[in-house]
Amino acid sequence: MDTREKIIIFDTTLRDGEQSPGASLNIYEKLEIARQLAKLNVDVIEAGFPISSPAQFEAVQRIADESTKIIAALARAKESDIKAAYQALRNAKAPRIHTFSSTSDIHILGKFGDSKYGLTLEDKRKTILAMSYDAVAYAKTLTPDVEFSAEDAGRTPIDYLAAIIETAISAGATTVNIPDTTGYTHPSEFGALIAELKRRVSNINNAVISVHCHNDLGLAVANSLFAIENGARQVEVTINGIGERAGNASLEEIAMSLRVRKDRMNCYTEINCPEIYNTSRMVSGFTGIVVQPNKAIVGENAFAHESGIHQDGMLKNRETYEIMTPETVGVQKTKIVLGRHSGRHGLKDRLIELGYQPSEKELEHLYDSFVQLADKKKEVFDDDLRMLMGDEFHKKEEYFELTYIHVHSGTDSIPTATVCIKNQDTLYKESSTGDGPVDACFNAIERALNLKPVVESYQVRSVTSGRQAMGEAILRIRSGEISFTGRGISTDIIEASAKAYIQAINQFHLYHHTELILTDDKIEIKAI
Amino acid sequence: MDTREKIIIFDTTLRDGEQSPGASLNIYEKLEIARQLAKLNVDVIEAGFPISSPAQFEAVQRIADESTKIIAALARAKESDIKAAYQALRNAKAPRIHTFSSTSDIHILGKFGDSKYGLTLEDKRKTILAMSYDAVAYAKTLTPDVEFSAEDAGRTPIDYLAAIIETAISAGATTVNIPDTTGYTHPSEFGALIAELKRRVSNINNAVISVHCHNDLGLAVANSLFAIENGARQVEVTINGIGERAGNASLEEIAMSLRVRKDRMNCYTEINCPEIYNTSRMVSGFTGIVVQPNKAIVGENAFAHESGIHQDGMLKNRETYEIMTPETVGVQKTKIVLGRHSGRHGLKDRLIELGYQPSEKELEHLYDSFVQLADKKKEVFDDDLRMLMGDEFHKKEEYFELTYIHVHSGTDSIPTATVCIKNQDTLYKESSTGDGPVDACFNAIERALNLKPVVESYQVRSVTSGRQAMGEAILRIRSGEISFTGRGISTDIIEASAKAYIQAINQFHLYHHTELILTDDKIEIKAI
Repeated sequence: MDTREKIIIFDTTLRDGEQSPGASLNIYEKLEIARQLAKLNVDVIEAGFPISSPAQFEAVQRIADESTKIIAALARAKESDIKAAYQALRNAKAPRIHTFSSTSDIHILGKFGDSKYGLTLEDKRKTILAMSYDAVAYAKTLTPDVEFSAEDAGRTPIDYLAAIIETAISAGATTVNIPDTTGYTHPSEFGALIAELKRRVSNINNAVISVHCHNDLGLAVANSLFAIENGARQVEVTINGIGERAGNASLEEIAMSLRVRKDRMNCYTEINCPEIYNTSRMVSGFTGIVVQPNKAIVGENAFAHESGIHQDGMLKNRETYEIMTPETVGVQKTKIVLGRHSGRHGLKDRLIELGYQPSEKELEHLYDSFVQLADKKKEVFDDDLRMLMGDEFHKKEEYFELTYIHVHSGTDSIPTATVCIKNQDTLYKESSTGDGPVDACFNAIERALNLKPVVESYQVRSVTSGRQAMGEAILRIRSGEISFTGRGISTDIIEASAKAYIQAINQFHLYHHTELILTDDKIEIKAI
Repeated sequence: MDTREKIIIFDTTLRDGEQSPGASLNIYEKLEIARQLAKLNVDVIEAGFPISSPAQFEAVQRIADESTKIIAALARAKESDIKAAYQALRNAKAPRIHTFSSTSDIHILGKFGDSKYGLTLEDKRKTILAMSYDAVAYAKTLTPDVEFSAEDAGRTPIDYLAAIIETAISAGATTVNIPDTTGYTHPSEFGALIAELKRRVSNINNAVISVHCHNDLGLAVANSLFAIENGARQVEVTINGIGERAGNASLEEIAMSLRVRKDRMNCYTEINCPEIYNTSRMVSGFTGIVVQPNKAIVGENAFAHESGIHQDGMLKNRETYEIMTPETVGVQKTKIVLGRHSGRHGLKDRLIELGYQPSEKELEHLYDSFVQLADKKKEVFDDDLRMLMGDEFHKKEEYFELTYIHVHSGTDSIPTATVCIKNQDTLYKESSTGDGPVDACFNAIERALNLKPVVESYQVRSVTSGRQAMGEAILRIRSGEISFTGRGISTDIIEASAKAYIQAINQFHLYHHTELILTDDKIEIKAI
């Protein structure tokens, strides 16, 4: 009989992961990631923070509408936040409201400094305790599955932490989460904290203990494993370990650590490991956050062996340097290649294997793009298809569209670009010089649209392999407090850059033309 | 009185780090990294594996010639390896020979399968024990500082591991290293292994215990910290955690973990933390191995705060979400910017602050490149200078030189490139079409030089910020068992790609025209 205990995988790629600087996902991308997370078989998908923006609200709502997984939505310990979370989750098969309060002294004094929360630290603590109770109790009237998080638990005095956890459970919380918000703790310390809570909190057996570790000192995965050894049964994780600052504990590292070392860890996850690689690539492709080659499990080099000594060892016995096979996590040895004669069926089947679920209409567009690409590339790789999917999703939000681009540049010549941009029936044509071919393009676009946004960051990278690699450009423009990210792909890196710029402008346009209307009994998104 | 114990930082960026797939460093880059590692104040620099190639030998030799740090050179437990290591270290102020044997069953059976090492596993173990003793004893006749590593110690039965460590110490090893070669162990397990060795090995106090952890399960840093808690006093690490597969324990994460949590860890390192960021950027720039934005300590987002809640918290009190300041590790808030009027002195001072030590002649070339760049970019950032340094080092190995390039491409036009390549007095001019502008360039280069190598990988990325960002192209070509990497930079990504291709061809040329001659009393590098 298997006596191992199950660890609940709570994936927060779409919430904490999406808070990574520069990683804004559109709704189509979020839906696709949520579907892939279901295929990966995570237990809980945290889909977003509904009150924070119309886009967040809509994304949570649409994921909740279609997914059969537990869908969590974040809410501060406030009625309006909880109401928005509930509205977004209304059609979920298994909704979870996830509410949180700050509990460490430094967070309390920083975020509850106002005297209305009390004059002394002790008073403020009491206020927060009461607010937390009320928030959980209110959420509980809306859904049976309520999670409570004590923000910055890692730096919270144990007495107060135990008290607030006990309070949350008494108000009905079914999961209590202990985040190491600043990634400050060391593994044995964090493990001891969980053990201590189990001892101190009298009603702890009425809830699942969860942990949410950050990676500021590179210890998020180790801290999570030590928490598991001490009684935590849910871990909050993200794909590729993305998230605020140095990110969260990485789903793939925890899942594989538990699996490879099942001899030591008396527990298991239900993660469908061969979907790890597809999920990693999808998230990296959509967020634009690169996975470094030396990233554990999913990095490009994770299963590569360079030195002569190692290669020799590998030929003799694969296990000499490999503690798991690439196939376990879905890294394919031979990448299946499509060509222009592969047809619609071949394309569709391959996309589904890669984790995408395109609609018939999307497939129609994708096929056109695929044929165009196959004309140029002869061999279309998995990563090419991943990029086409990203491009397809971005086309849906096109307000301005790049219809023509021409560039010439070289030694001792002045880089010059000509562009044509379409908006409904209007065509904007312009040309310009620049310091390089990309700069010339940007200048031409700005002239054509009579805009001059601040380009906050601009990055290009090749996203597929070989000499006819597709290039991706990611560009961020800033308007006041908010930045907008655009991405473009093409076998021509300059065209990709121009597309990225236009897309960032489209995002800017979209943002300024919707708002979230919150009334007593409903919430709606309105075009303005 | 400070009772904390010192942890020796053994940096293996230039040895294990350089074994990362795709990361081949030239000799100028290695020298510059070694100088920066000295500035970072690591205790030991492992400079390479001298027997493995003429380039490795020469790099170790030149680093040993000029550095005042302990310089280690790797050698299998063979006289010829140890002799080569010693020859390369001959002028070092503090030479260390680092010899190693395989000790786990799987490594022994895989790498010592030949019957000459014994017929049974037990016999082979005895042979390896004797070879290890002889290797250490021989190394000891050459230098007093000898390190012995038991490869794959993490999977070696404790009896045999203790026996071989005891043998190495009895033969004179002053440091004994316990590598977790496959990154298989969990932290408490690895800590317990170190504690057990301390108990079992009778002469353990005659040597420093070292650990060398790999990151296959994302636990290299945690494993190293647990080893320290259990008595290890040297950790083998790399900058950015690069290395075979998922890499090694990252220097910066261990150094900062010990520093931020000095309340828990009763030990310290002498790392000069404000040099961490410069070192990280230099290594990433030279190796071409990107650091993911969510990498702890040195990732682009490690100190960035995206969400509204966090930004609000940060404005109120910085410590709310920060356990260390960016300045501690040398991340500058305001990047100092140079312009075309900055002059030679301004440029030189800034380069030195960034960790580079250009010679007067290099500075002359750099200044020319800087003025050209400043004409295009107006503002030259730190990262631009880092890239110029990389470019300067690559020019030194130019056999073919790209002197002219012109490209035009765009919607519905056939991408066309013209190139001119110079080799001594010969000019090669050609043009070609292609599937995109880069492909057209590559075709033109291949026609001009009448070559058709296999392009194994090709990547581009922007390496500096803003719309006039410099782009870097990294390209790998393969010839038989060996691959050659070229890099190029330019504000024009297509020109950068062409330069990278030419440089890979130059590397190929260099490799095929030198060899290592090993005789009884000397080793030399010969042009052929």
